[in-house]
Amino acid sequence: MFQELVTRVKDTTPLIHNITNYVTVNDVANVLLACGGSPIMSDDIDDVVDITTICGGLNINIGTLNARSIPSMLAAGKRANELGHPVLLDPVGAGASCLRTETANRLLDEVQFAVIRGNISEIKTLMQGSGSTRGVDADVADRVTDDNLDTVIPLLKDFAKKMNSIITVTGAIDLVCDDSRCFVIRNGRAEMSSITGTGCQLSGLMTAYITANPDQKLEAAAAAVCLMGLAGEIAWSRMQEGDGNSTYRNRIIDAICHIDGDTLEKGARYELR
Amino acid sequence: MFQELVTRVKDTTPLIHNITNYVTVNDVANVLLACGGSPIMSDDIDDVVDITTICGGLNINIGTLNARSIPSMLAAGKRANELGHPVLLDPVGAGASCLRTETANRLLDEVQFAVIRGNISEIKTLMQGSGSTRGVDADVADRVTDDNLDTVIPLLKDFAKKMNSIITVTGAIDLVCDDSRCFVIRNGRAEMSSITGTGCQLSGLMTAYITANPDQKLEAAAAAVCLMGLAGEIAWSRMQEGDGNSTYRNRIIDAICHIDGDTLEKGARYELR
Amino acid sequence: MFQELVTRVKDTTPLIHNITNYVTVNDVANVLLACGGSPIMSDDIDDVVDITTICGGLNINIGTLNARSIPSMLAAGKRANELGHPVLLDPVGAGASCLRTETANRLLDEVQFAVIRGNISEIKTLMQGSGSTRGVDADVADRVTDDNLDTVIPLLKDFAKKMNSIITVTGAIDLVCDDSRCFVIRNGRAEMSSITGTGCQLSGLMTAYITANPDQKLEAAAAAVCLMGLAGEIAWSRMQEGDGNSTYRNRIIDAICHIDGDTLEKGARYELR
Repeated sequence: MFQELVTRVKDTTPLIHNITNYVTVNDVANVLLACGGSPIMSDDIDDVVDITTICGGLNINIGTLNARSIPSMLAAGKRANELGHPVLLDPVGAGASCLRTETANRLLDEVQFAVIRGNISEIKTLMQGSGSTRGVDADVADRVTDDNLDTVIPLLKDFAKKMNSIITVTGAIDLVCDDSRCFVIRNGRAEMSSITGTGCQLSGLMTAYITANPDQKLEAAAAAVCLMGLAGEIAWSRMQEGDGNSTYRNRIIDAICHIDGDTLEKGARYELR
Repeated sequence: MFQELVTRVKDTTPLIHNITNYVTVNDVANVLLACGGSPIMSDDIDDVVDITTICGGLNINIGTLNARSIPSMLAAGKRANELGHPVLLDPVGAGASCLRTETANRLLDEVQFAVIRGNISEIKTLMQGSGSTRGVDADVADRVTDDNLDTVIPLLKDFAKKMNSIITVTGAIDLVCDDSRCFVIRNGRAEMSSITGTGCQLSGLMTAYITANPDQKLEAAAAAVCLMGLAGEIAWSRMQEGDGNSTYRNRIIDAICHIDGDTLEKGARYELR
Repeated sequence: MFQELVTRVKDTTPLIHNITNYVTVNDVANVLLACGGSPIMSDDIDDVVDITTICGGLNINIGTLNARSIPSMLAAGKRANELGHPVLLDPVGAGASCLRTETANRLLDEVQFAVIRGNISEIKTLMQGSGSTRGVDADVADRVTDDNLDTVIPLLKDFAKKMNSIITVTGAIDLVCDDSRCFVIRNGRAEMSSITGTGCQLSGLMTAYITANPDQKLEAAAAAVCLMGLAGEIAWSRMQEGDGNSTYRNRIIDAICHIDGDTLEKGARYELR
C-alpha cells in the first residue's frame, strides 16, 4: 500500500508552506527536501496568503507562536481551506500556556485541518478544549500504552469525527485515526526524543504526504509516521561509538532521503484497529 | 588570481552583518566562520545601524521578511551605503509573492547593492520589475543552459549596468556579471539543491569575499561562487553509503574550512565571456 | 565534587525556558537535551510568564533581541525572580550597539540574575555600565591571560558582589566567580571559536546545571564550563581528515550526551583562586 504513496511524493514534489517555530525550522526544511517535497517558510501577514496560494499544502506549528504570527496562521489557514489545500496543525505546547491552548482552539474553530498531530498531552488538551497547564512533553500519566489502547482509540475516533480531521498522537506507540479506522504504529526508537524537533519534522513530512496523496489522506498520514519511525531505526543502526543526539538527528534526515516505497513497505510495523 | 582573494578573507576576518531568514541562519553563520569571516546577526530597527557601522559588509536576505525586518533592511542598507560598505541582496522568492517582489524592488530603489544574487527566476523578476507569481525555486522554463547562454548573458550585463551592481545567477551553470564581463562557472553538483539554504550560504560567503576584496569585487564574487561549488564537489566525494542531505550540508561547510587559495585555483572551473 | 552535580541534572531533567537568538537556538535545544535537561523556547509577551512558571530555570540571551522580545525578557525574568527560579543572562554583543548595552543594563537593573555569562568584552561593558562600541567577539586587548589574571579576578569578584550574581567570563581561560571564590578553568580548545554559538550553548547548559543544583550554584556553573570545554576536547579527538566546523559542532553536542560525572571529574582542569 505504502509504495504508491511514497512514489507520489517523489514524483510530484509537493510544495509545502510552513508557518513553524524558529527552533527546528531548518530541520523541517531539510526533512521536506529529504522526502521529495519542497519547503517554503513565510509568516508575515502580508506574505502568507500569496505563498499559500502557490503551494499545495500548509503546515502550521505553534512552537514559537507570537502576536505577529498568529494572525498569519489564521489567514493562511483560511486561504488554504478556500483552495482545498490540506492543512496540518501541530499544537506544540497546547496545555502549557494559555496562549498556546487558546491559539490552538481558535485555529481549530476557524480553520478546517486535514490532520492534527501532537503528543498525547497536547491532543488531550484540545479534546477537553481547556487550558490546564502541563509541560511541553507528554505527561507520563497520559502515555499511550498497550494497556489503555482500547480506551484511548475510541476517544480519538470520536474527536476525529467531531473535527472531521485525522488525529495523530505520537509517542512510544503512534496512533493515526479517522472516525472509523486507527493505525497503531510501532516504528521508531525511544532515543528519538533526545533530539529537538522530531515531532516538528514529522509534521512537515506528513503535510507533504497528505498533499501528494489527497485521496488517501489517512494512509498517507500513517505512511509518514511509519517513515519517520523507520528512519529513526535505520539511523540508529548507523550510529557509532561516541555519536550522540546531534549526529542522530543528521542520520535520521539522511535516512529519509534513502527510504523508498519498497523499504517502507517492508519496514512499516502497524496494525489497523 | 583566486589565491590572493582567499588569503585576504582569511587574513582580514571580515565582519559581516546579516539580516537574513531564520531558516538557514545558523548555516550562514557557520559558513562565514568556515571561510575566515565573522558573522553578526541583527534585525531590529533600533540595533541595525549600530551593528552595520562596526561591520565591514552587509548581507540582506528576504527569505523570511516581515513588517519588522523590512524597515531594518532599508535602514541598514542606507547606513552601509553611507559608509561605503558593500551590500549584497539575496531576493529569496521575488516573484513568488507581491510582498517579496515589492520589497526587493524597494530595496533596489533605495539601496545601492554591490552584488545581487539569486536564481534565474528571481533575477528575471527583478529585471522585469514586476510581480508575476512564480515558485521559490527557479522555474524550469527559465533555466540557464548552454543553449541560451548567448541570449542570457547580454541581458544580465545590461541589468548589471543599469543597477551598477554585480549580478549573480546561480543554478546548474552559475553566472557572475558586471556590465562588461561575465564569469561562466561550472563548479558544484546538482545534489546541492537537496539541501535547504545553499543559496543563502553562498550569499553570506560572497559578502565576506567582496568585503575583503573591495578593489576586485567581480573576481571576489566569482571566487566565492567557485568556492561554494568546489566545496559541494569535495563534500560529495566524502559521502558514504547511507549519507543524505543533512550530512551533505555538514560536509560542504566542513570543506569550506579547508579550501585554501591553491585548492580553489586548481579546482575552479570557469570561463570569461 | 562534579559527580553529584552531573547526576542531579540527569536525574531531575530540569525544564529550561529559553528566550534566545534565532541563530543558535536549535543547538541550544539539542545541548539541553544532550546534558539531560529539557528545553522550551517562547518569546511572546503573552506566552512567557506562563512558560516560565512551569519551568525550573530561565536563560535570557540577547543575541537577536528586538522590540518584541525585550519586554518578554523583562516579564519572564521578573516572574522567574518571584518564583525563585535561577535566571542566566548572556549579554551577546553588549558594547557592540547601544540597544544591546542598554538592554543588558536594563535587565541587570530589573531582574536578579543567578549567573551572567559573556566574553571579557561583554562583561567589561557591563562592569562599566557604558555603551562603548566594540565588536561582538572579545577585543584582543581585553583578553584574559595568565599575565593579567591577578588583576582581572578581583574586579570580577567585586562585580559579582555588586550584582549578587555569579560572573562567568569565557575565553582561552574561563573564569567563574562569586564574591569570594573564582574557578579558573582551562578546558576547551581554541577551535571551538570557529563554531557559531558555543557560548550560547554553554549558557543553556549552565542554566540546566544551576537549576538542578540550587544549593551549589557556583560549583554547578563551573561544572557546566568544564563540561563544555571537555566536550570540545573529546569532540576534537574524534575529528577526521576533512572534517571542519560543522562536524565539530555535531561532535561537541554528541560528546555532551556521553559525559557522565566520572568523566567530568577526571577531565575537568581547574584551580580555585
